Parts: sequence; C-alpha cells; structure tokens
Amino acid sequence: MARFGIIGSKGRMGQALAAAIAEAGHTLAGGVDAGELPGPLALECDVLIDFSAPTALDANLKAARVAGIPILIGTTGLEEANFASVEDAAKAIPVLQTGNTSLGVTLLSALVRQAAQRLGDDWDIEVLEMHHRMKVDAPSGTAKLLGEAAASARGVDLAQAMDSGRHGQTGARKPGDIGFATLRGGTVAGDHSVIFAGNEERLTLSHSAENRMIFARGAVRGAEWLIGKPQGRYTMEHVLDL
Amino acid sequence: MARFGIIGSKGRMGQALAAAIAEAGHTLAGGVDAGELPGPLALECDVLIDFSAPTALDANLKAARVAGIPILIGTTGLEEANFASVEDAAKAIPVLQTGNTSLGVTLLSALVRQAAQRLGDDWDIEVLEMHHRMKVDAPSGTAKLLGEAAASARGVDLAQAMDSGRHGQTGARKPGDIGFATLRGGTVAGDHSVIFAGNEERLTLSHSAENRMIFARGAVRGAEWLIGKPQGRYTMEHVLDL
Amino acid sequence: MARFGIIGSKGRMGQALAAAIAEAGHTLAGGVDAGELPGPLALECDVLIDFSAPTALDANLKAARVAGIPILIGTTGLEEANFASVEDAAKAIPVLQTGNTSLGVTLLSALVRQAAQRLGDDWDIEVLEMHHRMKVDAPSGTAKLLGEAAASARGVDLAQAMDSGRHGQTGARKPGDIGFATLRGGTVAGDHSVIFAGNEERLTLSHSAENRMIFARGAVRGAEWLIGKPQGRYTMEHVLDL
Amino acid sequence: MARFGIIGSKGRMGQALAAAIAEAGHTLAGGVDAGELPGPLALECDVLIDFSAPTALDANLKAARVAGIPILIGTTGLEEANFASVEDAAKAIPVLQTGNTSLGVTLLSALVRQAAQRLGDDWDIEVLEMHHRMKVDAPSGTAKLLGEAAASARGVDLAQAMDSGRHGQTGARKPGDIGFATLRGGTVAGDHSVIFAGNEERLTLSHSAENRMIFARGAVRGAEWLIGKPQGRYTMEHVLDL
Repeated sequence: MARFGIIGSKGRMGQALAAAIAEAGHTLAGGVDAGELPGPLALECDVLIDFSAPTALDANLKAARVAGIPILIGTTGLEEANFASVEDAAKAIPVLQTGNTSLGVTLLSALVRQAAQRLGDDWDIEVLEMHHRMKVDAPSGTAKLLGEAAASARGVDLAQAMDSGRHGQTGARKPGDIGFATLRGGTVAGDHSVIFAGNEERLTLSHSAENRMIFARGAVRGAEWLIGKPQGRYTMEHVLDL
Repeated sequence: MARFGIIGSKGRMGQALAAAIAEAGHTLAGGVDAGELPGPLALECDVLIDFSAPTALDANLKAARVAGIPILIGTTGLEEANFASVEDAAKAIPVLQTGNTSLGVTLLSALVRQAAQRLGDDWDIEVLEMHHRMKVDAPSGTAKLLGEAAASARGVDLAQAMDSGRHGQTGARKPGDIGFATLRGGTVAGDHSVIFAGNEERLTLSHSAENRMIFARGAVRGAEWLIGKPQGRYTMEHVLDL
Repeated sequence: MARFGIIGSKGRMGQALAAAIAEAGHTLAGGVDAGELPGPLALECDVLIDFSAPTALDANLKAARVAGIPILIGTTGLEEANFASVEDAAKAIPVLQTGNTSLGVTLLSALVRQAAQRLGDDWDIEVLEMHHRMKVDAPSGTAKLLGEAAASARGVDLAQAMDSGRHGQTGARKPGDIGFATLRGGTVAGDHSVIFAGNEERLTLSHSAENRMIFARGAVRGAEWLIGKPQGRYTMEHVLDL
Repeated sequence: MARFGIIGSKGRMGQALAAAIAEAGHTLAGGVDAGELPGPLALECDVLIDFSAPTALDANLKAARVAGIPILIGTTGLEEANFASVEDAAKAIPVLQTGNTSLGVTLLSALVRQAAQRLGDDWDIEVLEMHHRMKVDAPSGTAKLLGEAAASARGVDLAQAMDSGRHGQTGARKPGDIGFATLRGGTVAGDHSVIFAGNEERLTLSHSAENRMIFARGAVRGAEWLIGKPQGRYTMEHVLDL
C-alpha cells in the first residue's frame, strides 16, 4: 500500500485515477489542479501521477525532485522543451512518461514493432483509430505512438513516412509510407488498429478500450512499479518487462 | 442469351466483364478501347457496358442511341456535364449509370439510407474504406455513394456535411457532419463500412469484396435487366427492386 | 413525465433502469424483487418494466392487468407457456415483450430482415456474438432474435435451419442453414454481427454495446411509448416505427 | 533457381504451387498424385512439397530420404503415427512440417505466443475463424495452431483448455479455457482472429487471406529455405527467423 498524489485531480482522468487507486488498495494522499502548487502534496506522497497540462510540467517535475519521489507523466501534447525537462528530471528521480498508460496498448506497441521488423517492405503499414466526438486532434497520441513503433522498427523517420488525412487526388500509395486514418463519433473510448497489408493477405493488430478506467488502472500499476526504482527515464514497456 | 459489347475491353475491368459475360451464358459481340469508335459495335449488340473514361462518354451514349440499345455506364470520375449527357440520352434509351455495380454494395447503400432515416441526429455517421496501394483518389467513389445515401436520407447536402481527411487540430466533431477515412495498402479489392456511432452503442454496416469479379458479375446482371426496359435513367437499386 | 415501476429492481439491469428513468426526467415510483408482490406497486405507476425471471411473469402480468397499466417485459429465457401468458394479457393491456431493448439492435434486426429478403439463397447467413465471461447460455437471446429475423425473411423455421456450436467433422455447410458462433470473454457488454457471405463478397451488419445503459435507455423509451396505447402485443420495432 | 517436385499436383493447392514456383523463377520438375510413386520424381528434384494425404505420407518421406533431398509437408489431418514418421525422417533429411504455410499466419502465431505470455490469466483467450462453405471440419487446422501457440505460452494443454462449439446452457466461462468459434460461408479463403479479452479492454490479432496463393507462395519460400539445411525438423517460424 502506497500514498498516491494526483496532479489534475478534477478532470475526468483524475476522477478515474482516484477510483483506480482505491480499487488497488492504495491511499489517495490528495490532488491538485490548475493554479495550485504541487510541492506540498509531493511531500506527503510515495509517488505522483500527472495528467494535467504541458504548461504545468516543469513545476510538477520540480515538486517530485524536491520530495525525492517518482512521477508518472501521462499528460499529452508535450513538445521538444517538455521532453528535455523530462530527461533532465530523470537524472535525479525515476520518471515514467508515456502517451498511453493502458497495458493492452503497451503490449500492442511491442507486437507492432516486431511485426514491422519481420515483414518486408512489400507489407504496407496503416494505422486506424476511432474516438468519441469530443476529441479535438487527429490522429490520436496513441495512433502516433503505434506509428512510431512501426517506423523505428523499419528504421525510418515517422515525420517523413507519415501519410495522414488522405483526401482528393492522392496518387498511388508511396512505398514505405505509414498511413493514418481517423474516425470520430459517439462515445467511443478508443479503438486502434495497425494493419499490415501484404500481397493477398492482411495482418491486423487491434486494441479496443471499453472506457477510460483501463488508462487509470494502467497508470496506477505503472506508478506502483516506479516506487523504489533508481533514477532514470522509463516507459510502460518497462512495467510489462517487454 | 444476349449479345454484349464492352467499351474499355482491354482494361482489368474489361477482362473481368468478358469472363462474367461468358459465365452467365451470354455472347460477347466485341469490345472497343480508347481511340476506337463504338458505333459499329453497338449495331451488333443487345446492350453495351461502358467502363472507359469520362471523355469517351458522349460518343458511347450516341452509339447506343443510334443503335437503339440500352447502355450501362460504370465509368467513374463523371462530372456535371457528363451527368447532363446521361440525362439527355435517357430520354431516348434505357441508361443505367452507377458508381458501383456490386449487388452487395447496392443493398448496403439502401440499408444505410434506412438507418440514417431511423436513427436520430445524435448518431454520428462515418464512412471508412480500404483499397489496394495503387488507387489514386480518396475517398473512393463507393464511399461517396454511401455517404450520399446517408446525406440524402438526412436531408443534408453531402458537399456541406463531408469531413474527409482529418489531420491536426480538428476541433470537436461538428454535429451533422459525415466523416470519411481512407486506408490504402496491399491488394485489397475494396472494403467499405458505414458506422453509426451513438451514445454508448455503434451500428456498423460493411461490405467486403474479395476481387473485382463481383463488379463484373453485377454489371452483367444489371445489363441483362436493362434489355427490354423503356427509355429512362436507372440505377442498380432498380435491378435489386429496392 | 410519468411514474415508472421496476420489477427486478436490485439486479444490475434494475439499477441501470433507475438511472435511465431519472436521466429521462421521469419518476421512479418504486421497485420490487424476488418474493415481493408487484400488485401494490402497479397501482402507483403509469407503466411497469419487468426484468426479473420467467417464474414471476404471470404475477407481473396480473398486477399490470389489475391496475390497467401497460407493461414492458425484458425478461429473457421465456418459454412457450410464458408467451401464451403474454398473448393473453395483451388482450386486456398494452404489452411490449422483447429479447433486446436497444434501439440499435432493433434497427439492426429490421435491416437483417431486408437483407435476407433481397439476397438470394447463395448468400450464406451467419450470426456471431461476443459477451462477457459470466454469461451462461449460448447463443445469446439477441443472436437468436437476429437469426429469427433472417429466418422469417427467408420463410424458413429457425429451429430447423439453426447450425450452432460447430465442432469436429461437420461436413460442408448445408445450403439454407443459419450458422451461429459464440465468443465469451472479458467484460464485453454485447457485440453482434450478422454476416451474409456470398460469392466473393460479404455484407456484415453489426451492433456493439459499450455498456448496459443502452438497454435501460431503450426500455425506458419503449415504456414511455407504451403509455396510452390500446391493448395489444407490441415489439421494439413498433417504437421505432419500423 | 531450384528444381521443385509437387506431391498432390492436381488439387487446387497443387495448381497454386505450380504458379508460385513459376512466379519465383524456379523450375517445376514434375508432380505426382494419388496412386503414383514419388520415388522417380524425387530423384530429379532439389526439394519436394507435399500437399497430398496422410496415407501417402510414409511413401513421400521415404522417397525424399532415398533421394537425400528436403521435403516440406503441408498435408493436414496428420495423426500421432504421422508425426512419428516425420520425426523419424528428420533424423536423415531436413523436414518442414506445418499446418499453415502463410508467412502472415506464421508471424501471427509468434505474436499470439508473446501476448499470451505477457498478459495475465485475467485476459480470456478466444480464437475465431471463418472459411468458405465447403470446408468440412471445425475449427480449422490454423485455428488449432493458433490456440496451441497460446496454450503452450501459458503452460497449459490445449486438449484440456479447448472450449469449442459452445451451445445451450454452457455456464460461465471457465477461467483458463481457450475458446473457439467457427463461421462458415461464401468463398472466404481464410480469416483468423485471436482475441485477448481483459477487463474493459480487448487486444485482437487477426489474419485475413484473400486467396490460396499466399499459402502456395509461403510453401515455396519455405522449400527454398530448406535446401541446403542440415537434417532436422523445421517449422515456418524458422523460415521467418522468429
């Protein structure tokens, strides 16, 4: 049993985290939200979970460093400068930063990497995702994470290979491209598929989330795992020992 | 048993049509291709099937009118002026013009229309399609045909409602939009899905083609049906009595 | 705003119904469970919703008749004698009895009926369903309801045509059979697909429920609709005007 | 370029093999069928491919041994005694025996093994397959091969864990079971899915074959790979270096 702190505690993810912490038999030491300082909370916790905003990242990392506790970062929309901050903090404390805390997605990502390595360039790679009607960006962070797994396995740069948002006279598919297609609608919690389309056969690796609790449960499991680890930068794949 | 003429006989679709005509026990009177005049062929046929190019359309319709025989137009990429030519020819002879000759897709289109009518505006409509790596445009003509069925059932203009090629900061889904997502890869003959995404439930209507013979067989069945009909403009839905 | 009574109020479906009644702005007059008599409750309601057990059916129907109010029966596992009781009660009061209260499934069933009518006997019909690991019977009541829609559209008797639970040396598929396949696992709320497999093409009509609230919402909408109708036996298709 | 011999050359698979051998630039030395002795053919080949019948297996293995050439066995329906014969022959020559020669299915099988290892027992495993209407047994050999991959990864005996052909009052899913569901219809060349159903999430790994050429191409690639290898028993996973 450990003491957890939630940064971004009043959002939908924050509420799911509180439920998952209780479900796993841990203690919720408290939560902070926009405008509140995470420092005092960090001092009463064994681990922090941050699902807030990129602008709050530096203050959150600092609070964890000062308290000497690990932190799991699930905030999306991070940019170059944010990743540098994460690297920097990881020299002092254990930091797990991830675009998706689901164990199923983490495994999917590892399977995608292997399939991309084993299948030749004559197997085209496509990433399909569907989310609820309120989602504001495309493709999803998880779709990009899966595309990145495929791209790195093939030794290509995703920024170069990404073909997202096809519309109109596209011309034939460019060999080596990684395609992305985005569906939006209803209340879908998150469906992702990576399709390897070869000559007269297809291999499809898919994940479907029924609701956001799986992300909260995965985050709690990741945070549990992080307690007691040496400083360093970790991913969910470490948690699953992949 | 009837005599069929193929316009665009040397393309992949033309070859499939020849096989389907033989399979159905009909006679192939002959075929013409780019640069050849369809007039002499029309005089020896009971019906023409045209899978050639928009630029050839007027000559093909004229040949059918002069010969007084029906014509099935499966050519894609038609524009306003082409549709006007079709309407004009249909005053004199039976003309069936369609974006997809598969019986399964024709039925799917009718089912989509009904679902769109019955389900309220809180069910978001998305169209997904996948085709082989050589396809040069997106979304497919069939995807648009399915979107059109949904749009007309809801009394909206597809050109206004179409949201195709999502990428980047899209904002939340606009109520009433009809979304399109496009996958390309491998040798996929043609998969289409229309997804109705409601509150915590989804209805999905899909068609999958194993190869292009289904389009050829459907075209032959449509052309058979057309023989002996009065002048007028027809669709594949008439053939299925939908 | 109407007064609703729930028979089977403490089960998981009963709790979902209470939430759906509140969500729709109605009043929950009360609920009864195994061993409690529904008569007093019926006198304080405008409509009853029954998701209890076949053994309680006769008492529930009688309570509705005495009170002169409509009743919606969502109880599963009904047998011949139960259906006779329903028919009998429907001579006096409006009774809606259904194997699935979801509007999406109701529409799916109507679409399946049409597809089965339009597609020839060379299109094989298969029903696939997946439910959570706790479900104790196979195929699901909804799968049978969908199979029945297909069978009646083809003028065959489902009991004769049903081919469920294939295993071992089955021999080739018997023409005209309606196949059923059952998946069980996890927490799946309910996925159903009806597959029409033709020569080199497939048409698939699917429904996916994210959770049981859709059944509760559909039941509430059905019960609302039932208030004020003349005596008679109704189905969810009447509610959707299909 | 190598010289190939086909045992079972006149069947549908034999014809596909002949096409795949030519496509890959090899020479077809000849073929034999039921009632013909494979010995003389073996002497003129660099490798044999056997898609015939279990009853012919011993003669085929002997022909390969006498000629001192490798043999790939794709024949299905093998039993205990057949596997013993394969083991025996593999002491003298390279023998690749497999239930599925597709590279995609071989990779799928390896991915299933890993997912089964990584995901805990609270993820239920289900295998779903669909084949054309003429297939006479259920589940398919490939479905069993995939189930075997999952079972061995979990350290259980598939014969014990297999739950195939659910129908009627099945009771709740037994923890640890591996479920199988079978669809039949149309002309489907072969679709397989392995579903890992967890708490509120699902991971699905699927393969879809457009036609039987993929099995022929995979067999030819396996046979190519086998030439020059030391005696021993091999699988398609060796060919993909999995």
